[in-house]
Amino acid sequence: MSADTGAGDARRAAAALDAADPLAAFASRFETAPGVRAYFDGNSLGRPVAGLAQRMASFVREDWGTRLIRGWDEGWMHLPERLGDRIGEVALGAGPGQTVVADSTTVLLYKLLRALADAQTTADSRRTEIVLDTDNFPTDRYLAEGVAAERSMRLRWIETDPDTGVRPEQVAEAVSERCAVVLLSHVAYRSGWVADGAAITALAHDAGALVLWDLSHSVGVVPVDLDAWAADAAAGCSYKYLCGGPGAPAFGYLAQRHQAWARQPVQGWMGRRHPFEMGPGYEPAPGIRGLVSGTPPVVAMVPVQAGVELLAEAGLGAVRAKSLALTDFAWEIVESWPAELGVAIASPREHRHRGGHLTLRHPGFQDVLAELWADGVVPDFRHPDALRIGLSPLSTTFAEVETGLDRVGAALLRSAR
Amino acid sequence: MSADTGAGDARRAAAALDAADPLAAFASRFETAPGVRAYFDGNSLGRPVAGLAQRMASFVREDWGTRLIRGWDEGWMHLPERLGDRIGEVALGAGPGQTVVADSTTVLLYKLLRALADAQTTADSRRTEIVLDTDNFPTDRYLAEGVAAERSMRLRWIETDPDTGVRPEQVAEAVSERCAVVLLSHVAYRSGWVADGAAITALAHDAGALVLWDLSHSVGVVPVDLDAWAADAAAGCSYKYLCGGPGAPAFGYLAQRHQAWARQPVQGWMGRRHPFEMGPGYEPAPGIRGLVSGTPPVVAMVPVQAGVELLAEAGLGAVRAKSLALTDFAWEIVESWPAELGVAIASPREHRHRGGHLTLRHPGFQDVLAELWADGVVPDFRHPDALRIGLSPLSTTFAEVETGLDRVGAALLRSAR
Repeated sequence: MSADTGAGDARRAAAALDAADPLAAFASRFETAPGVRAYFDGNSLGRPVAGLAQRMASFVREDWGTRLIRGWDEGWMHLPERLGDRIGEVALGAGPGQTVVADSTTVLLYKLLRALADAQTTADSRRTEIVLDTDNFPTDRYLAEGVAAERSMRLRWIETDPDTGVRPEQVAEAVSERCAVVLLSHVAYRSGWVADGAAITALAHDAGALVLWDLSHSVGVVPVDLDAWAADAAAGCSYKYLCGGPGAPAFGYLAQRHQAWARQPVQGWMGRRHPFEMGPGYEPAPGIRGLVSGTPPVVAMVPVQAGVELLAEAGLGAVRAKSLALTDFAWEIVESWPAELGVAIASPREHRHRGGHLTLRHPGFQDVLAELWADGVVPDFRHPDALRIGLSPLSTTFAEVETGLDRVGAALLRSAR
Repeated sequence: MSADTGAGDARRAAAALDAADPLAAFASRFETAPGVRAYFDGNSLGRPVAGLAQRMASFVREDWGTRLIRGWDEGWMHLPERLGDRIGEVALGAGPGQTVVADSTTVLLYKLLRALADAQTTADSRRTEIVLDTDNFPTDRYLAEGVAAERSMRLRWIETDPDTGVRPEQVAEAVSERCAVVLLSHVAYRSGWVADGAAITALAHDAGALVLWDLSHSVGVVPVDLDAWAADAAAGCSYKYLCGGPGAPAFGYLAQRHQAWARQPVQGWMGRRHPFEMGPGYEPAPGIRGLVSGTPPVVAMVPVQAGVELLAEAGLGAVRAKSLALTDFAWEIVESWPAELGVAIASPREHRHRGGHLTLRHPGFQDVLAELWADGVVPDFRHPDALRIGLSPLSTTFAEVETGLDRVGAALLRSAR
């Protein structure tokens, strides 16, 4: 697209935006990525924080290699709650004692869904429905299907438009005295639509239902306010905007008021009261620790700590402001493309509904993906025709947005010829 | 104890044993541990393999930092099966396609216990018992308690002597036409007793029951032969003799013949057939992949790969031979201590029942632990009076055994005065 008259303008605009960006210096706070011109996938896998390679090496040599088993007494044992509290404070609007780091998002969602659903059906056997939406992230849908089957519950589906997302009035219509739990994503994985957390939680509560939020696509980029929403439970992953690395452990939140009655089913030694007593009979540890099952993933938490501290330094408010500016800029560029190119933006225009990424649709995207990746332009592709442009605010410059989108457009043009 | 006449003899014996040890060179294949004179806890947390600090740094900068999301297409996606197959080959006697790396040991045991128990009770509703032993590792007992409660099953306990372990005749007596699953540890976490995997599996099968083995304390030090035993399922952790680091992901094995009918309950996108289709409805991926739920823990698998490759290089047969020689040597030293000291060995004397660690009992151990740790002698303590002397064959020298035990004995003597 660089031959177009608009390209020079866009380049100058990008330079001006970068010059005025209060978070500009953070872009150099990540490990370098030789050959990568534009990384558009921080919404799927965040980049490693600069210095992390050294930090991991030092963890291996010192914390693990030298302190050895003594590390458990010297801090590892309570890392799940300590790091959980920190994520809660920096990104979730969650007071202490309600968040832990453990397992994968899927496993934590399973444990929390079971905890809430089992407690609800025990209290009122007519509450047998799990409400979720048709465009919820696949793992949420699959695990709810499994829980419904094993607990003799049923799924009630909200039909959502995949280009937008779930709206409060849809939730109001779906929840009833039969609903046990509502399971929704705060930010939709395809469109990036931001659901109204406070309104939806309140509507579910009005019907006597509890809400489990999947925060995977919001944590670290879109403000979340779990305590203020009076959310019941939440889980999410730390390898997207929190930069925890591929397959990093997840975080789970269970509101304090539910901790005494809602019990998760995977009863492991690390979630037991007095684990090293190793005695007979399981009694959950008090507080959020009862959500833990197996041995805390200490090695895998090292990158998460680095990512969360970088986010804390920048501040989530500033990150959200830059996120909107980045997606605004990307939006303008894509809108400037010739209509004949046929690229549609399948994400919300309004800021209050826009998450950290934009989804573009074009039937030719699958064909140009390999070329883009080889050229160092790295978005991700979602079957059948969607390219997600994920713009992680701390690591992404406006110049990068311009460079990458210019090459996306050019590749489509070449492929159409 | 160094003033005793025996100490000089022991030191000379250690030197001779180290000189004759075919695996002696492996002791320098681990990251150094400044200030650690004797590490007796490789049965709980293995030491990092030499070069791992660099390997982790390089993983952060290159695999993750530069390949970024492309890494999933370039190998990460199938790492759970690839590394699982390798562990199966090197340490479990498991043919390909039956082992994956994922989750924690507790979560995998939960998924496998549910898979087997649900399949059994569906096939025959009278099979409602889970048989396990009173000295099984705590997490096994707690999770079985939870599964029994949620599935309306009951636990049938085999009373084991904590200084030895579970015997085939006890299993024969406990299993009946009401038994769904037998859940046992192959090597007991306290005594180190090695159960007879082949005989117990056969006895359970004779009664129509299935067997789930916890291999946490055997993998990498005691030969396991899952396929030859006709074991049904197994799980274990990779942070002990496999040196995967604190909280490393676990491995799970499900025999091929059960993969089509035994379904685990945590239905996540990564265990679905065609995960990136992201379509409606969960259908498990064929084969062992169906045991996976969430995103594979790629960062955390890097140290496991290093540990498994080192084990492969040494060979499990040689490792087992050295393990027995190390515990024999430790046994002789402890037996040479004055009887008045009152230290008992609470582990099996016969090689065929001896695992990778010895447990010593003395009421004064708790009082001397902090002093030993500060002095660089690092065993672990198990409530109320047990000191575990874990001797990881690849990283432990005979000289280290002599040095460490000498200080353990001396500390007890001082504390008794």
